[in-house]
Amino acid sequence: VKPRALRSELRKLLEPGSVLPDVAPLYLVDAAGALGFVGSADAIVRPVSAHEVATLVAWCDSHDVPVTPRGGGTGLSGGAVPLEGGVVVDMVRLRRVRALDPLQWRMQVEAGLPTGEVHRLARENGLLYPPDPGASEQSQLGGNVATNAGGPHAFKYGVTGAWVTGLEVVTASGDLVQLGGATRKDVAGYDLRRLFIGSEGTLGIVTAAWLRLTPAPERRLALTAFYPGTPEGAAAIQQVIGSGLVPAALEYLDPGALAAVAATYPGQLPVGAGFAVLAEADGGHDEALTLREALADALSDGALALECHVPADALWRWRDSVSGAVASILGSKFSEDVAVPVDRLGEAIEITIEVAAAHGLPACSWGHAGDGNLHSTFLLAAGDVDALSRAEDAAAALFAQIRALGGSLSGEHGIGSFKRHHLLAMHDPAELRLLRAVKRALDPKGLMNPGKVI
Amino acid sequence: VKPRALRSELRKLLEPGSVLPDVAPLYLVDAAGALGFVGSADAIVRPVSAHEVATLVAWCDSHDVPVTPRGGGTGLSGGAVPLEGGVVVDMVRLRRVRALDPLQWRMQVEAGLPTGEVHRLARENGLLYPPDPGASEQSQLGGNVATNAGGPHAFKYGVTGAWVTGLEVVTASGDLVQLGGATRKDVAGYDLRRLFIGSEGTLGIVTAAWLRLTPAPERRLALTAFYPGTPEGAAAIQQVIGSGLVPAALEYLDPGALAAVAATYPGQLPVGAGFAVLAEADGGHDEALTLREALADALSDGALALECHVPADALWRWRDSVSGAVASILGSKFSEDVAVPVDRLGEAIEITIEVAAAHGLPACSWGHAGDGNLHSTFLLAAGDVDALSRAEDAAAALFAQIRALGGSLSGEHGIGSFKRHHLLAMHDPAELRLLRAVKRALDPKGLMNPGKVI
Repeated sequence: VKPRALRSELRKLLEPGSVLPDVAPLYLVDAAGALGFVGSADAIVRPVSAHEVATLVAWCDSHDVPVTPRGGGTGLSGGAVPLEGGVVVDMVRLRRVRALDPLQWRMQVEAGLPTGEVHRLARENGLLYPPDPGASEQSQLGGNVATNAGGPHAFKYGVTGAWVTGLEVVTASGDLVQLGGATRKDVAGYDLRRLFIGSEGTLGIVTAAWLRLTPAPERRLALTAFYPGTPEGAAAIQQVIGSGLVPAALEYLDPGALAAVAATYPGQLPVGAGFAVLAEADGGHDEALTLREALADALSDGALALECHVPADALWRWRDSVSGAVASILGSKFSEDVAVPVDRLGEAIEITIEVAAAHGLPACSWGHAGDGNLHSTFLLAAGDVDALSRAEDAAAALFAQIRALGGSLSGEHGIGSFKRHHLLAMHDPAELRLLRAVKRALDPKGLMNPGKVI
Repeated sequence: VKPRALRSELRKLLEPGSVLPDVAPLYLVDAAGALGFVGSADAIVRPVSAHEVATLVAWCDSHDVPVTPRGGGTGLSGGAVPLEGGVVVDMVRLRRVRALDPLQWRMQVEAGLPTGEVHRLARENGLLYPPDPGASEQSQLGGNVATNAGGPHAFKYGVTGAWVTGLEVVTASGDLVQLGGATRKDVAGYDLRRLFIGSEGTLGIVTAAWLRLTPAPERRLALTAFYPGTPEGAAAIQQVIGSGLVPAALEYLDPGALAAVAATYPGQLPVGAGFAVLAEADGGHDEALTLREALADALSDGALALECHVPADALWRWRDSVSGAVASILGSKFSEDVAVPVDRLGEAIEITIEVAAAHGLPACSWGHAGDGNLHSTFLLAAGDVDALSRAEDAAAALFAQIRALGGSLSGEHGIGSFKRHHLLAMHDPAELRLLRAVKRALDPKGLMNPGKVI
């Protein structure tokens, strides 16, 4: 089908206004778009309802047209970039709150609702929706589900999947299916919810989710600790874990990441600081205070300085600014998202720098220390094709070393299109057979977000 | 293959002593065996290693021999009952602790290790493995994973799947595959771990699991509250949830369940008590105390009496005795395991009694109030074929009403063989297509635990 004919067909099928007049460039990239990965599409559709998504996908299935779902476009793995033309399904208009039951600690929302809106609704009702991936005002809940997104508070509270009790999905053949619901426990049949969570739109499209919430903690107390460098900082993180303390968040910034945001730190940065640990104690009034004292104690060995942050919000906004600040150093960045067993974190931070240096690139990392999840990042100038090619080689070398530490290629950003060949190269053939079998079973024609994951 | 020839072939293939000389009757039933559901098998194998499981399954795959994995045999849904002959794989000898890293809050254990042993190892190292399904000395971790088992403390801590970061599985074709590992976060590829968790041995056999642990709470304070009947008790449970308190456990016993264990209650049972709520507050020293006070406050409306239990263990042992005591009333029981949104709990408790009465059966229920998970149980005499038939009809009527409340056929026991036809009758055809597609993709010959789930 030619693009113009396709759009004309879709206009007959769908609600007035759902098919955009043309294909704007913003739909062909994700948040790593500055690196030059640009896709192609024949039509952009903004459905108004889950039923319209189902109608669209059923039509695409019977006409062999590829479908690429798109949330807030904040991904960094090319997961939302349309690689084989066809239709981009922009979920932005599916943003109804279908149910909000504060007394039952739950809500049902559509996939296009911004994550920040979910946070706000929970907070206004004395509750907490803990997953807090970055860019919460742009990112959408459906994208969070599709990537099983994490964030700083995943350390205590778990990632998105831990808070989803039910999903509404449109399957590859265009069926609208409910998987689970408001029930907190459900083991009837295979856990299809969990299979769709993190499947990056390659098995179907999430149109709505039932979310579990939890009562908001009375108090959140944040704390920063600064160290001369990575060895001291990594040792302090191990000290916290080994002490049996459970902070709500336990984050780190390595020397390069800290330097990138040093000027905007909301406090007093000590001279010679080359590594930062950010921690949060939450809970009841006294409990949070006791935990913060214990955290301060565990973090004090080798620290240059410790500082309390009340309220915690300014500190987390600063933390959220790291990614953008690092990208600004040379104009662009090539950012990975590896995860290792927590006791290998220090090694993984050093490996990031070594691998980059071996490829002639500056690098830094920051991330979710308590979960062993690093945003290993190579710095480069926008449009520097040679540096980009070296960054790709560096990433491959990094992945090999991370796998040797017992780690994963992705802790929260997903495989998308960028890491697909690494997954294929590094995972066990028997595991790849299982992944392929699942993909073929649920998307036999391979039309759902083609070129991603597997 | 004839049974004797099969056993002889397997003896050539496997370690000496792995193939049992004959098929003992205990391998043909599960914990609901008193109801008369008995399977058939041609050989019982007790492998000593995951590699031996893989060798066995690969042979069975190439010879079209059905495979039924068996853990502790404590299931109540017929999941471990061999329905189509073939080989029962008893996991009891795979019980090594492969790794125990207390400072990293994790361990890797083989599937046959009793759940109670996992609890003990965690406890001795100052840690907690929270999932606590009943019969922990008999049930095995692999069976807990296969059913995604819950227990009283799932309310605060989540079910088994929330604590599994990696699995080793033998696939239907006999490949030994690692899915995840010690890494706390991993979104590389589909969540095959989660697909195997709760799949009841129908997609492959879990041979080992990486478990996440958490620091043990300093203090556990239990509390009971007694009410005249179900309406008052159900209202008190809603009061707790609506107050935003997060107890570690929130359980209930309805009038019949309470009567069955009244004589052994470790405390002072008030006159006229017809409903019990059990709650536990855990956490730091002061935090647990504050929470218990708040729970007592929330539970006091309409209560006949409240009682504190220190230590909590005696109360939880009493709670664990309910199932056996209820079975003793008439000699047998037909027990379901439905789950509803928490605000429908009171209705679901009443529905259990009404549905049973309409079929001429006495009934009661107890269970995980905070998770809306009921053990709805019909009482009958052992060997009463007529009552059993009415219980089956009552279960079907119960399931229909539970589904109408937005609930699930199973909160933690699984579908097994008993509930399979209900799953097929009550779930959406599009969802059943997905379930069947997954089963076909991962077990194309249908040899893994045949006749179960789908």
